[in-house]
Amino acid sequence: MTKIFAYAIRKDEEPFLNEWKEAHKDVEVDYTDQLLTPETAKLAKGADGVVVYQQLDYTAETLQALADAGVTKMSLRNVGVDNIDMDKAKELGFEITNVPVYSPNAIAEHAAIQAARVLRQDKVTDLKMAKRDLRWAPNIGREVRDQVVGVVGTGHIGQVFMKIMEGFGAKVIAFDIFHNPELEKKGYYVDSLDELYKKADVISLHVPDVPANVHMINDDSIKEMKDGVVIVNVSRGPLVDTDAIIRGLDSGKVFGFVMDTYEGEVGVFNEDWKGKEFPDARLADLIDRPNVLVTPHTAFYTTHAVRNMVVKAFDNNYAMVEGKEPETPVKLG
Amino acid sequence: MTKIFAYAIRKDEEPFLNEWKEAHKDVEVDYTDQLLTPETAKLAKGADGVVVYQQLDYTAETLQALADAGVTKMSLRNVGVDNIDMDKAKELGFEITNVPVYSPNAIAEHAAIQAARVLRQDKVTDLKMAKRDLRWAPNIGREVRDQVVGVVGTGHIGQVFMKIMEGFGAKVIAFDIFHNPELEKKGYYVDSLDELYKKADVISLHVPDVPANVHMINDDSIKEMKDGVVIVNVSRGPLVDTDAIIRGLDSGKVFGFVMDTYEGEVGVFNEDWKGKEFPDARLADLIDRPNVLVTPHTAFYTTHAVRNMVVKAFDNNYAMVEGKEPETPVKLG
Ligand SMILES: NC(=O)c1ccc[n+]([C@@H]2O[C@H](COP(=O)([O-])OP(=O)(O)OC[C@H]3O[C@@H](n4cnc5c(N)ncnc54)[C@H](O)[C@@H]3O)[C@@H](O)[C@H]2O)c1
Ligand SMILES: NC(=O)c1ccc[n+]([C@@H]2O[C@H](COP(=O)([O-])OP(=O)(O)OC[C@H]3O[C@@H](n4cnc5c(N)ncnc54)[C@H](O)[C@@H]3O)[C@@H](O)[C@H]2O)c1
Repeated sequence: MTKIFAYAIRKDEEPFLNEWKEAHKDVEVDYTDQLLTPETAKLAKGADGVVVYQQLDYTAETLQALADAGVTKMSLRNVGVDNIDMDKAKELGFEITNVPVYSPNAIAEHAAIQAARVLRQDKVTDLKMAKRDLRWAPNIGREVRDQVVGVVGTGHIGQVFMKIMEGFGAKVIAFDIFHNPELEKKGYYVDSLDELYKKADVISLHVPDVPANVHMINDDSIKEMKDGVVIVNVSRGPLVDTDAIIRGLDSGKVFGFVMDTYEGEVGVFNEDWKGKEFPDARLADLIDRPNVLVTPHTAFYTTHAVRNMVVKAFDNNYAMVEGKEPETPVKLG
Repeated sequence: MTKIFAYAIRKDEEPFLNEWKEAHKDVEVDYTDQLLTPETAKLAKGADGVVVYQQLDYTAETLQALADAGVTKMSLRNVGVDNIDMDKAKELGFEITNVPVYSPNAIAEHAAIQAARVLRQDKVTDLKMAKRDLRWAPNIGREVRDQVVGVVGTGHIGQVFMKIMEGFGAKVIAFDIFHNPELEKKGYYVDSLDELYKKADVISLHVPDVPANVHMINDDSIKEMKDGVVIVNVSRGPLVDTDAIIRGLDSGKVFGFVMDTYEGEVGVFNEDWKGKEFPDARLADLIDRPNVLVTPHTAFYTTHAVRNMVVKAFDNNYAMVEGKEPETPVKLG
């Protein structure tokens, strides 16, 4: 009987793992909540493949231990492969898959909801309610439908974000170095980033953090923007010069900021700092501002996305162990 | 020169008042931040009409004082006329206008944003961030696009809400005792409220609180709903049996609740209770729950809505004092 072993399964993944198991009675599925390490690799002994997801490095030692346990077919439940020792993986004859697209909507919805909340001055109301100040003035809201929304990057996520903003009735404009023909026909694209900065009330980034895009939001670009602009970064921290944003917030030029990704997030996000010294004073300041909404890289974290991460990873692994072509193989090196 | 005097002008109304003034250089506009009372009525002396907005009663005495100051043309910046002594107004020959529709989008956007936040377990994340717990699990989000959204009442606000939810990609169904022909053609309507309750993951009320609708959300209707239902009331407090909602929340049947209007809101909302004894323990409990979003009847409070309230009231008043037909007269008694 075919056997697949899964590592680091969280509580919220179990329903989807069980769903997959139900649909594949011919496969024996076992799992642990532990990460894959040189020590835990032996848990996979007897399995035909493993399904994994961790920030922890897949070191040469870990890969060797897994190969020693007889397993070289490894399916990631996430996108990123930077933490895999690719040379070693190649040397040991590993076959690896990932899940490059699990739910653009998860991220686009989060961007839209948070942008709308900032416009509405929602956090001010929430803070007042918690203190039992039930007066509605003076934190008046701005309706989404009255905004010009500028979308930078019209890939998987940007396109979904555009649809949501249009459902609210906003006017959407976009910039991308590559013009999607459908969107081009509908006249969304402006000619330059400068033009987008000048016209948009809300600016949302949906581009990768390739070197050309690092700190694309900086003092100069903010200067070009409209007074009262709302800036949204749910893509990658390095896209934004955080100090420039803070200067914009302090001067009142920037009305509000949505931040799901942060240039200093590694080692800070996804940790519990309660009762400990918080390591980043700038981040603490942003978290506490009533016109800033910080979330710790959770835009992707929906049942839809997690289901796809689990189901697609198992599908990939099953294909590999059955000697079939997996849907999304990773090219090694 | 024509003169209009305005009462109870708030800071956030001034830009729109000034905008109207700019566009009507032939009219002298004066105003105060005070409410209209028997004492302040004399401030309107010499004016041709007044523009007003207050919860405070327009008593026989107040109306008499205003008539004594020579003014009987009164334009409300809001909808409600329950607080006007109509018999006295009629007797004194008053002409009155109101603003029945100022921005359905203000209310619909608020309902949509808050419903999305509850699905996303956003408040849990916010509370964690404030305490410096930056872990993302276990409060996983539900995407709006995966929900069946049931809209009760397809009038001005309900229709805008439907469009927003469809922008997210949700499946929308609706119930109304009157079928809008456009929506009927598109197949939105289910045959009964029961059917809507059985099928919807999110239920949003957009109906008036006529006697037939009082406590339409109660133990029996909640029993019919799907497990994990999200209920949204931004319409009128009496539509919902609050104790039944609390039982639903406690049992886990109800995943979350959005409440902008509350059956006990009079005398509690729009007051500052900081440092005072809070008068409603049930409300305090709701405010503090991580899966409940309470706002103090602020869904209407946007720049778009406030602008319309000011501009439309002045337009109405100007029409009356010029002897023309105002757009939205109030029938007296
Ligand atoms: N917060 C989260 O949880 C989360 C999850 C997944 C992805 N993301 C991030 O979201 C972003 C978008 O992801 P996607 O799946 O839509 O990517 P995608 O590849 O589908 O689209 C990216 C688009 O950006 C365009 N682009 C690249 N450089 C540009 C530039 N300088 N100016 C304008 N356009 C440019 C590309 O032409 C492409 O159309 C990425 O940065 C990704 O890392 C965040
Ligand atoms: N929270 C706020 O700040 C705020 C502001 C304005 C209005 N509101 C409230 O929003 C609600 C909707 O306002 P609107 O402008 O859309 O009203 P509307 O009159 O345009 O629409 C109401 C709809 O409800 C339908 N209806 C009445 N009783 C019904 C029932 N028992 N079942 C199903 N449908 C029924 C009517 O046929 C109509 O289509 C009202 O309760 C109003 O008081 C709230």
